[in-house]
Amino acid sequence: MKKTKHISTPSLTGTTRFKVRFSEVDSMRIVWHGNYACYLEDGREAFGSEYPGLGYRDIHASGYGAPIVDMRMQFRSPLRLGDEAVIETRYMNSDAAKICFEYEIRRADNGQIVATASTVQVFTNRDGELELVNPAFYLEWKKRWGVK
Amino acid sequence: MKKTKHISTPSLTGTTRFKVRFSEVDSMRIVWHGNYACYLEDGREAFGSEYPGLGYRDIHASGYGAPIVDMRMQFRSPLRLGDEAVIETRYMNSDAAKICFEYEIRRADNGQIVATASTVQVFTNRDGELELVNPAFYLEWKKRWGVK
Amino acid sequence: MKKTKHISTPSLTGTTRFKVRFSEVDSMRIVWHGNYACYLEDGREAFGSEYPGLGYRDIHASGYGAPIVDMRMQFRSPLRLGDEAVIETRYMNSDAAKICFEYEIRRADNGQIVATASTVQVFTNRDGELELVNPAFYLEWKKRWGVK
Amino acid sequence: MKKTKHISTPSLTGTTRFKVRFSEVDSMRIVWHGNYACYLEDGREAFGSEYPGLGYRDIHASGYGAPIVDMRMQFRSPLRLGDEAVIETRYMNSDAAKICFEYEIRRADNGQIVATASTVQVFTNRDGELELVNPAFYLEWKKRWGVK
Repeated sequence: MKKTKHISTPSLTGTTRFKVRFSEVDSMRIVWHGNYACYLEDGREAFGSEYPGLGYRDIHASGYGAPIVDMRMQFRSPLRLGDEAVIETRYMNSDAAKICFEYEIRRADNGQIVATASTVQVFTNRDGELELVNPAFYLEWKKRWGVK
Repeated sequence: MKKTKHISTPSLTGTTRFKVRFSEVDSMRIVWHGNYACYLEDGREAFGSEYPGLGYRDIHASGYGAPIVDMRMQFRSPLRLGDEAVIETRYMNSDAAKICFEYEIRRADNGQIVATASTVQVFTNRDGELELVNPAFYLEWKKRWGVK
Repeated sequence: MKKTKHISTPSLTGTTRFKVRFSEVDSMRIVWHGNYACYLEDGREAFGSEYPGLGYRDIHASGYGAPIVDMRMQFRSPLRLGDEAVIETRYMNSDAAKICFEYEIRRADNGQIVATASTVQVFTNRDGELELVNPAFYLEWKKRWGVK
Repeated sequence: MKKTKHISTPSLTGTTRFKVRFSEVDSMRIVWHGNYACYLEDGREAFGSEYPGLGYRDIHASGYGAPIVDMRMQFRSPLRLGDEAVIETRYMNSDAAKICFEYEIRRADNGQIVATASTVQVFTNRDGELELVNPAFYLEWKKRWGVK
């Protein structure tokens, strides 16, 4: 993945742990790759608990939507039924009107890397139109958490 | 399942066919039971194409919601990756303000029964409150399709 | 639901808590009914942690499968994004070669009932054929936990 | 996305059409981004019907697995309940022991682009270990369909 330049002092990170469910495992007896989209969502949720104000409901209450426009995942090592893993979700600052996260999923027992991922969200107004300017609530959120 | 009295002259039925997806199969290499809720939804969708006016968007446009309040499934024989099956969705008339369906899923190749199921939907108004009286649009739908 | 006679001294129960995920909510902004199959699975998993020996991997290691043959759900009150709920999973003893559970899902904040459900699992051998006799490992599990 | 050099004479492409299901739509009333992993799977399935021999079961029968190690999606325009769309799945040849696909999802009514995506699969042997050399069945598949 070609990195865009991110300037992030300090690094905001949320961490959460999960256990693989039976329904997440496919016929190869590993977690079906599509289910990682849920894990990333859990990661953003956990991040939102650490640094409140950037959750789906906060964004919605401010009159915006924040759909995902780009999602990338690299799968390094499979998870199996009953495995436990840790998701680290790191906020990547950008001047553009975007919310960028990078994710690292590791096995809980030995720290082995399972997958890395990234997502980019943009802002839309109530009519679903793209907002090119950073919404006020987002600039305030950045300020509150010391993101420059 | 204890049957409530259904009076249904004529029997309205919709039929659709599907092929098992990789993501629907679990580690026992059969369709994970929870995925049948999607198949029933496909069945209602196919029914709605045969007898228009009872789809989610029709109900929503009339100012109502129709959440499922009861769902029952009996699994007789498993489906595996690549299997094709047919869902028959039968409307079960009732005087109460409810939408009742019964379903039969059979293998497409030999007609073997895979599962039977039933769902009951009630009506809610815009505020999510239960409607005990049959909505006008629903009575019209019944009349249109000769359901007495 | 017509109850079959259950004789269960003592009552084995497992409890777990969950928070509604964004991906579980539908366009009516309530948890899509099909997702409750996952919650019931979480309930069985939590039960299995309380009374080990009846999980998917235990059953598989003993040379059996335990597919669900009957699942019933009654939805009383919807869950919304961010809501937290508690699942109580109760083992219902039966002399037949079956694993029967009943479930109660309640809101974590005020105890309001959200849904009730039941599942029945049967045993299959390595060739996927139905086992009509209680497997030895299951009789031992019952004995271990004082189920008569 | 940084493209690796692909030499593909002729261009093998499979096409399939789908309709958005109720259960695929989220509370913003658009298809939840995670569900596109299913659509890509439908795309590969359709490709496999056009150019048989590269489906999950073919690969499995040849003694291999082909897990996805990289998945990228760009979302351009949302799909809503009842929308119909077409997925074009294009095989991207590579000398490495990989299966690479690129995908384009367009609205069925006006051809508007909805999403683009790519996946990379590698080969694993029966023990789940990475195979760095192209399996014989894969080289035969390439030969059969004129991929050089």
